[in-house]
Amino acid sequence: MNQPCETRLRVRYAETDRMGVVYYANYLVWMEVGRVELCKSLGFSYRDMEVDDSVQLAVAESYCRYKSPARFDDEVIVKTWVDEANPRVVVFGYEMRLAESDRVLASGHTRHIVVNSAMQTVRLPKKYYPLLGIPDPTA
Amino acid sequence: MNQPCETRLRVRYAETDRMGVVYYANYLVWMEVGRVELCKSLGFSYRDMEVDDSVQLAVAESYCRYKSPARFDDEVIVKTWVDEANPRVVVFGYEMRLAESDRVLASGHTRHIVVNSAMQTVRLPKKYYPLLGIPDPTA
Amino acid sequence: MNQPCETRLRVRYAETDRMGVVYYANYLVWMEVGRVELCKSLGFSYRDMEVDDSVQLAVAESYCRYKSPARFDDEVIVKTWVDEANPRVVVFGYEMRLAESDRVLASGHTRHIVVNSAMQTVRLPKKYYPLLGIPDPTA
Amino acid sequence: MNQPCETRLRVRYAETDRMGVVYYANYLVWMEVGRVELCKSLGFSYRDMEVDDSVQLAVAESYCRYKSPARFDDEVIVKTWVDEANPRVVVFGYEMRLAESDRVLASGHTRHIVVNSAMQTVRLPKKYYPLLGIPDPTA
Repeated sequence: MNQPCETRLRVRYAETDRMGVVYYANYLVWMEVGRVELCKSLGFSYRDMEVDDSVQLAVAESYCRYKSPARFDDEVIVKTWVDEANPRVVVFGYEMRLAESDRVLASGHTRHIVVNSAMQTVRLPKKYYPLLGIPDPTA
Repeated sequence: MNQPCETRLRVRYAETDRMGVVYYANYLVWMEVGRVELCKSLGFSYRDMEVDDSVQLAVAESYCRYKSPARFDDEVIVKTWVDEANPRVVVFGYEMRLAESDRVLASGHTRHIVVNSAMQTVRLPKKYYPLLGIPDPTA
Repeated sequence: MNQPCETRLRVRYAETDRMGVVYYANYLVWMEVGRVELCKSLGFSYRDMEVDDSVQLAVAESYCRYKSPARFDDEVIVKTWVDEANPRVVVFGYEMRLAESDRVLASGHTRHIVVNSAMQTVRLPKKYYPLLGIPDPTA
Repeated sequence: MNQPCETRLRVRYAETDRMGVVYYANYLVWMEVGRVELCKSLGFSYRDMEVDDSVQLAVAESYCRYKSPARFDDEVIVKTWVDEANPRVVVFGYEMRLAESDRVLASGHTRHIVVNSAMQTVRLPKKYYPLLGIPDPTA
């Protein structure tokens, strides 16, 4: 429903492994980069949400399907969107592809639980409902 | 079918994030640690397999469910086993728990495709069949 | 002598630690990002140098002075320059600062030895001399 | 003056890069592993120091000399000691070598400033003086 967000990054040498390609855990770091940029494009800062509202999106599940390897210095486009959202759970979807050829590198999702700074589950403050496409029950 | 392997590691400061807990991508690194130790417990070295047989287990899929956060200096037990194996695909299963309390931190799996050093799909050399519990069709 | 190069990056959540600031080893990753961009600004691709000329700049020494902590989502400017260069050794200098306030976060250098793919020391191919500011002895 | 501490680790696939050797920033992670184990061998837990005394050892400087590359699955011995200590500054020294051959991989040091959780410089609580070899001025 929400607009997907595309952000670009350049593969770092640090992200490759001795197979000569990007190490698989780093795709989850790229998902985080996409998520943070998506929040900005939706109108809020993930950092401010953590600091001002003491609300965090703890990761409950990650899934990634690796289709084609990325290599050092490749430019990668990370496309991110809200797959599902309610006051307690947000699911983000991702697709990563090579900027040069549009070849899909990987896709996946992460499921997040809304928690406070003591890691207890809470409800998302209402101001985030419209931003994440959550219907307001009082409307 | 094969014997699961348990290996222990200590959470590094580098692996935590500003939420005070282990960053979610690092669980995939721990899965790799578990996988490498499982290979040894099954009777072969993953490193030698790459070097001597020019065969690699490229990750095709990763899944992790995060149940309870790990913290700096916690001792973690990574339990790893072969979930499924055939000459072209190997699936490893994982469970990570706190050594102190046996509390489960996360569980998941990774699916791997057998490839050569040019990243082309190949069949696993036969000597690995019994080690990974793959029935020998010629038997 | 050569023109310094400035490149920008955004602090990732993955790069922070439980102190709430960027983990110290990640500054060395940022130095690598700066180095790769500097090479481009000097007229060559570090990747192509490795692939086409089988020449690598193996790190022999790293030094970093940490002055002020960087935090999640900060925009960081990495300034990189060639401090010293001869056919066998290249030293890069770095300064990292916050984009917002120009506050210096860290500074340092890395010393590199020119090696081939078998990790043996070799001389840099001559075409890189003018790019890195190395005088040509035959001129 | 204090007893050096030796700790062992196994090189992770994640720690290698496309050069086939350990990426240079990861040696700083290993230094942290050595530091944490050294604290335990000296009689205190770095984690408890942070949590109970709200005191942190912020890194002010890191230096590493890389002598010989480490490879995937190598066993590495990290030797760590207190190079210098006073109530405001602690310097740790490190030497990393291959367990198999005793070949030195790298050596270096890190300089730390004692800070509180607001990142302000403070003095180390006195109970740590004898542990780190700091003379007690009131003695």
